[in-house]
Amino acid sequence: MRCAVLKELRHALDLETRPDPIPAEGQLVVELHAAALNRRDYWITQGLYPGIQLPVVLGSDGAGTVLAAGSTEDAGWVGQAVVINPGWDWGEDPRVQSDRFRILGMPDDGTLATHVVVPTEYVAPKPPDYSWHEAAALPLAGVTAYRACCTRGRLESADRVLITGIGGGVATMALMWARSAGAAIAVTSSSPQKIEQAQHLGASAGFLYTDASWPEACLEQFGRPTLIVDGAGGPGYNVLIDLLAPGGRLVNYGATAGAPPKLDLFKVFWKQLDLQGSTMGSPDDFAQMLESVRRQGVRPVIDSVFPLERINDAMERLAGKDHFGKIVIDCGS
Amino acid sequence: MRCAVLKELRHALDLETRPDPIPAEGQLVVELHAAALNRRDYWITQGLYPGIQLPVVLGSDGAGTVLAAGSTEDAGWVGQAVVINPGWDWGEDPRVQSDRFRILGMPDDGTLATHVVVPTEYVAPKPPDYSWHEAAALPLAGVTAYRACCTRGRLESADRVLITGIGGGVATMALMWARSAGAAIAVTSSSPQKIEQAQHLGASAGFLYTDASWPEACLEQFGRPTLIVDGAGGPGYNVLIDLLAPGGRLVNYGATAGAPPKLDLFKVFWKQLDLQGSTMGSPDDFAQMLESVRRQGVRPVIDSVFPLERINDAMERLAGKDHFGKIVIDCGS
Repeated sequence: MRCAVLKELRHALDLETRPDPIPAEGQLVVELHAAALNRRDYWITQGLYPGIQLPVVLGSDGAGTVLAAGSTEDAGWVGQAVVINPGWDWGEDPRVQSDRFRILGMPDDGTLATHVVVPTEYVAPKPPDYSWHEAAALPLAGVTAYRACCTRGRLESADRVLITGIGGGVATMALMWARSAGAAIAVTSSSPQKIEQAQHLGASAGFLYTDASWPEACLEQFGRPTLIVDGAGGPGYNVLIDLLAPGGRLVNYGATAGAPPKLDLFKVFWKQLDLQGSTMGSPDDFAQMLESVRRQGVRPVIDSVFPLERINDAMERLAGKDHFGKIVIDCGS
Repeated sequence: MRCAVLKELRHALDLETRPDPIPAEGQLVVELHAAALNRRDYWITQGLYPGIQLPVVLGSDGAGTVLAAGSTEDAGWVGQAVVINPGWDWGEDPRVQSDRFRILGMPDDGTLATHVVVPTEYVAPKPPDYSWHEAAALPLAGVTAYRACCTRGRLESADRVLITGIGGGVATMALMWARSAGAAIAVTSSSPQKIEQAQHLGASAGFLYTDASWPEACLEQFGRPTLIVDGAGGPGYNVLIDLLAPGGRLVNYGATAGAPPKLDLFKVFWKQLDLQGSTMGSPDDFAQMLESVRRQGVRPVIDSVFPLERINDAMERLAGKDHFGKIVIDCGS
């Protein structure tokens, strides 16, 4: 097998050839047709992730064909087209992941490879009308956005949804879930191009958050959002609280802009707000997401496709700010 | 009728005799047997409440006998023992109050009187085994605590509930709802006496929040709370976020200690927390609260009883920090 290995922090990934893996009891080997990158892969290369163990094959998202099964009762999977659920050992509580929870691609070797070893419980049939690239683009961003919007945010068709920082994988999938629910959608970005792209995908309004008057523009052109999906936090967090409709929900799947420097708790209780945290998703979230994909034809947005041999060009695009949607890796098989 | 009137901010209430009120179409006149004070009454006397209009008869909580009805179809209420729902014009949305929402006792003349005029929709039969004092102590603190704990906080028997600032009317009612749900209960206070009183009422643990090591003591003696009911906010808010069990809820019905100086949003998303605002309650909350009182025999805690003629002594006790539970006014009829 070929694989992209992180051996040293803040260095390029090394492309290596290793012996093809052999599945143990309860495991499958998947021959990967495509993988996809997540912001997490970048954080790991920068040493900004808890519990880093090197060397590791990075990559959480993958889709491919099952090549071999370690248990005879799993033999039916061989030859099947699958997507991989990258959230492992969630645990028993649907509300929160266990201490054992981890994401494929650190410490377990991940999907930036031609082959990957996966416990049988973490594969699911590929949505039949998806391309391999689409199937690989879905899992981690899809389930994170699904949980944030649907499981946690209780997204409904009557909602007016504001999605901040459009262009990122999760934000873009949130846009797709909001569109499939029939909700009204607005987005924010620092890039006029990304706002235009979001409008092509179904957003009815978009605002440059670099313009300090964007909240007033939002009130005028879109109205108060009933659901905000945010991955930034930071000083802008209280602006979102202010903007939110009474009775609204603000769901955070991250805080890339840091901890908000205060919290306007008076507005929180007087407006009866829900401020919710959400990260990744449970096996139930993953199954419900795939069901929603089947029922509603939701598709991930693909920014670009790189062959595995050009993984470091793909990582460079991930590190920049220009991509809109998922960066997919063609694993060549 | 006799009534206690606020004519000037930061002055004592004046006891006045006025003509007995006559109900208009859709109104009832209730002869009050008892009323009760709320922190809101104090804030109003200090000018720390929005939209103050003087003079006003203060008082949100009351229980009594219906004396007269303004409409023939309401004649069946005459002679009935009732409690008054003080939350008026909530509006159509169960999630949040409308702009018209107001609480009895400003601008509408309230219950610190021998008689009060109330729209028929805001009376309900008095819980039959309640005393008049208990019935008057229930409404505003009861529905605020009910909404915070049950409607918003989704209180269950498996919960470990932490109630901060025990002694206040809402906190003490929250303790009663948590006990009736069969949850484990801990409290915080700055007073060892109040902690002891809470333990007599069913709290299994109590912590002096003036002792900086109280969170460690809570972890040791009680464990991580799954539901926190807080009316303070302020710098202690992030301590509560830290203490909360993964997947837990932190419900605020106020922020008497001010806006928290930061928000640890990383813990919020990683622990999948819900930070929720709640205030007062809807007509549904009020009806469900009374149903819960009937089914589970929950009773409010009464701190002290003053006759209406001694209203300013009662207001002085409200302004202090010593009371535990509700300050009740005996309206003498």
